[in-house]
Amino acid sequence: MADATLFPTRRLRATPFTARVEAAGVSNYTVYNHMLLPTVFKSLEEDYAHLKQYTQIWDVSAERQVQIAGPDAHRLACMISARDLRNAQPGRCYYAPITNANGHLLNDPVALCIAPDKFWFSIADGDLLLWAAGLAQGLNLDVTVTEPDISPLAIQGPLAEDLLVDVFGEDIRAIKFFRFTAFPFMGRMLNIARSGWSKQGGFEIYLDDSNLGLALWDAITAKGAPYNLRAGCPNLIERLESGLLGYGNDMTNDDTPLEIGLEKYCALDSDADFIGKDALLRQRDTGIEKKLMGLTIDGSPMGPVSMPLDCKDGISKVGLVTSGVFSPDLNSNIGFAMLDISVAQTGSMIEVETQSGLHKAEVCKISDFEARLKATA
Amino acid sequence: MADATLFPTRRLRATPFTARVEAAGVSNYTVYNHMLLPTVFKSLEEDYAHLKQYTQIWDVSAERQVQIAGPDAHRLACMISARDLRNAQPGRCYYAPITNANGHLLNDPVALCIAPDKFWFSIADGDLLLWAAGLAQGLNLDVTVTEPDISPLAIQGPLAEDLLVDVFGEDIRAIKFFRFTAFPFMGRMLNIARSGWSKQGGFEIYLDDSNLGLALWDAITAKGAPYNLRAGCPNLIERLESGLLGYGNDMTNDDTPLEIGLEKYCALDSDADFIGKDALLRQRDTGIEKKLMGLTIDGSPMGPVSMPLDCKDGISKVGLVTSGVFSPDLNSNIGFAMLDISVAQTGSMIEVETQSGLHKAEVCKISDFEARLKATA
Repeated sequence: MADATLFPTRRLRATPFTARVEAAGVSNYTVYNHMLLPTVFKSLEEDYAHLKQYTQIWDVSAERQVQIAGPDAHRLACMISARDLRNAQPGRCYYAPITNANGHLLNDPVALCIAPDKFWFSIADGDLLLWAAGLAQGLNLDVTVTEPDISPLAIQGPLAEDLLVDVFGEDIRAIKFFRFTAFPFMGRMLNIARSGWSKQGGFEIYLDDSNLGLALWDAITAKGAPYNLRAGCPNLIERLESGLLGYGNDMTNDDTPLEIGLEKYCALDSDADFIGKDALLRQRDTGIEKKLMGLTIDGSPMGPVSMPLDCKDGISKVGLVTSGVFSPDLNSNIGFAMLDISVAQTGSMIEVETQSGLHKAEVCKISDFEARLKATA
Repeated sequence: MADATLFPTRRLRATPFTARVEAAGVSNYTVYNHMLLPTVFKSLEEDYAHLKQYTQIWDVSAERQVQIAGPDAHRLACMISARDLRNAQPGRCYYAPITNANGHLLNDPVALCIAPDKFWFSIADGDLLLWAAGLAQGLNLDVTVTEPDISPLAIQGPLAEDLLVDVFGEDIRAIKFFRFTAFPFMGRMLNIARSGWSKQGGFEIYLDDSNLGLALWDAITAKGAPYNLRAGCPNLIERLESGLLGYGNDMTNDDTPLEIGLEKYCALDSDADFIGKDALLRQRDTGIEKKLMGLTIDGSPMGPVSMPLDCKDGISKVGLVTSGVFSPDLNSNIGFAMLDISVAQTGSMIEVETQSGLHKAEVCKISDFEARLKATA
C-alpha cells in the first residue's frame, strides 16, 4: 500500500491551496472528508524535526466545517454534542465528542460558536453533516445544515505567533488558546483561532473564500523567511508524542468516549441532555471493558503502523495497536493501543505482534510521552 | 497528485481481500467509504482491454452496506429513496437515488431487499449511514442502522458466468440481472447478484464474514485459468464508455437527479412519498438549468481528468468536465460534463480548457458512447 499511488479524480477534492502544496513537494497524501490532506513532504522525520524548531504552513482544508445555523441551531448543537454547549460563547472553540444513542463515537470535532444561532463543527474524517441533517429533518428543526466554503490553513510551530503578527498585526498575540478573532484579509474577515493539530503552538485561519487561497498562502509565505517557514502537515510522530488522537485510527464507531479517555469532555454530571448520555451513564456505572492507552514498543525503529497490530498477553489477544511509529526524541517506538481493561494500566507488560515478530511493550498513559519530553527538555 | 503515494493508516481501511490485491500487483488506489479501492493494476489501458475480453476479480469491499433492519425498516427505506420501494421484493436490487429535502443528491446506492424488514443500501462514497441513523433517531423509528461485515467481491467480464458456474454450480445461470440468490460457501450462505460497475456482465458476491475473504478469493482464482482470470477493478475507460456515473465525480450534493438524467428512477408520478419529492416536482415544473451530458473532446489522447476542466462557449464558462479519458475503442477522448442547459443538447459544439490549451468538444448523450461501440461491434 505504501508504494501504490493515489488515482486522481474529482471526488478526491483538491483544496484552495493544492497548487502551492504540490509546488512545495508534497510526497504523501491521505484522503480525509473526501479531500486531499498532505501527510509527508520531505520525510516524516525531517518534517517532524522542522516543525518542532521552526514554523510550518499546513493545508488542513480537509477539516471541513459543518455549519448549523438558524433559530434551532443551538438546540441541535447541544443535542449532538457530548460536550456541554449550553453556555457556548461566540469566539470560543470546544472539543466536542459526538455520540449516537448507544454512546458510540461518530466524530470528535472542534465546535466553534460563531454566533448564538450559528455553529461550525470542524470535523474529523466522516460525514457528520448527514447526522446533523438527518436529525434536523426527522425533528423538523428550523435550521440549515451546510458545508460552507471554508478551508482552514494552519500555521504551526514555535515561531507561528511572530510570523502571523507580521502578516495580521499585533492583535494576533491577544488570541487565547481555543479562542478565535476575525482579522481582515483582502476585503474579508477571516476567523483566526489559536489551535491546531500539534502541540507546538500555532493558529488555524478559517479561509471562507476559495478564490483567495493562493493569495493567503502567498501573503504568509512572503513573510516566512525569518522563521524558516516551509510547507508541512500534521505529523504522525509529533501527534503521538503529543497524545493527539485521530478519529478512524485511535477511536472508531466501536468505541465510546469513556473508553478513549474523553470523559472530561462529556457532560455526564450536569443536567445537560445530549444523544448518547443515557448509554454513557450506564457504561460509567457498569465500568468499561477496554481502554485506549499509550505503549512503548521494544525493537528497532518502526515505520508507521498501517494496519492494527495485535497485542498479546502470553497467549491471548488483549488489544490492538491503533497508531504507532518511532519517536526520535524519545528514542523509542511509541503508539496508542486499545487494550482489554485487564492490562490497561501503567506498567503492564504485553507483547505486540509486528511483521518482524513479537516485541515486548509497556503500557503507559497517553499523556506520558509529552510528560517525558518535557522532563528531559 | 498522480505521483504522491498514499500514506497508510488504520483509517484507510484494508479489506478482507487486500493481501491478494497487493500480491496481484495493484498500482493505484482510491479511498472510498474510508476504505481502499483499487483503481489500476497494470495500466488503465491494459486493464480495460483485458476486462472486455476475459474476466476479472474485483475487490469492491468499499461498496459498504448500510443495513436498515427492524419493524420500521421498510418505512425508512421508502422515505430516503427517490426510487419507489413500496413494493420492493426480497431478492431484487433497485438503483435508488437518495435526496435531501431540497432534492439534492446525497448518494446513489443500489438497494437490496433482503427481507420485508431488512434492506441493504450498497453505497457510493459517503456516510449514508449517518443520514439514515439521524432520521431514525429524530423520528424515533424502530430500526437499527448498521454497517455489517459485508464485503462485496465482483466477478466482471464476458466469461464471468462460466467461471462462477465452475465455483458455485449451474444455478448461477438462473440469476437474472439485478437479482440475487444465496449460495453456500464454507458453511455460510452468500448473496450473489448479477450486477456490477461495468457493462461487461458479471456478478457481485456479498461476503458476510471477513475471515473468509482469502478463502473466497482463492476458491475463485483456483478455477480462473480457463477464463484468463486476473485481478482488476472498476475501470475508468470502460465506465465512461458504458455511461456509468460516479457520485462525487459526475454528481454531487450540488445536483439533483433531474440534472443527472436519473428522473426514471424517481417516483415523481406515483403517490409514493420520499424526502425531496416536493422539491423535485417543483424543479420539474420550472425546468432544469444544467444537465450532465457526454462529450467527445478533440486533441491527442488525454489521461484521466483529475480536476474538473472548464467548458467554454466562446467567452463564457458553460460547464465543467466531471470525468474524462481517452477511449481506445472509440479512438477519441470522451467524458461527462455538467453543462448549462443552453448547450446541453446533442451536437452542441463547445470548448474544453485542458492543460494543453483549448480543445473543441461535441456534446452527446451519455448513452451515446455505448451505442457507438455496439454499432461498430
